Amino acid sequence: MRYVVIYDITDDNLRALVAETLKDYGLQRIQYSGFMGSLRRDELNSLLVDLKNLIKDLVENVQLFPMCDTCFKGKKEVGKPKKYEFKEGKDKIAYF
Amino acid sequence: MRYVVIYDITDDNLRALVAETLKDYGLQRIQYSGFMGSLRRDELNSLLVDLKNLIKDLVENVQLFPMCDTCFKGKKEVGKPKKYEFKEGKDKIAYF
Repeated sequence: MRYVVIYDITDDNLRALVAETLKDYGLQRIQYSGFMGSLRRDELNSLLVDLKNLIKDLVENVQLFPMCDTCFKGKKEVGKPKKYEFKEGKDKIAYF
Repeated sequence: MRYVVIYDITDDNLRALVAETLKDYGLQRIQYSGFMGSLRRDELNSLLVDLKNLIKDLVENVQLFPMCDTCFKGKKEVGKPKKYEFKEGKDKIAYF
């Protein structure tokens, strides 16, 4: 199933770790704090475990939305896509 | 149809204007840069016009994903919801 994953994470290091984790699962960045890609059920379950282990009981937030083909076809976009180049190291993250 | 709207807008004033616009259409904030809510077709079309008029040809980005009931039921969330209190004035935006 295709998923859109959006996060709202204040802590810089944690945000970088979450982004790295999403990339590890093969998701593609669609915005600064948004990723999209396909996850099998076992991958989704594993990702949720990894995210819970990262976020623990912090007031940080990740939301994952499944997106069927019909929904995906109805996607709209306004504005130009941005180019993202990140150094995904724990201690520094650059945003161009 | 229910929509998830996410934006990645660097310009502070423009970001505040986009947030205000989404609120004007009755959408609810689900993250710092994410809203959700129901839009009729005419509301969606009007919102797209408003967003295009705001963003013009800037390298700023808004994405709108329709979300059917089945997709919505599969939504997952990790972490705690944040409380957002914004002053949506053009010139200042506060994030608590």
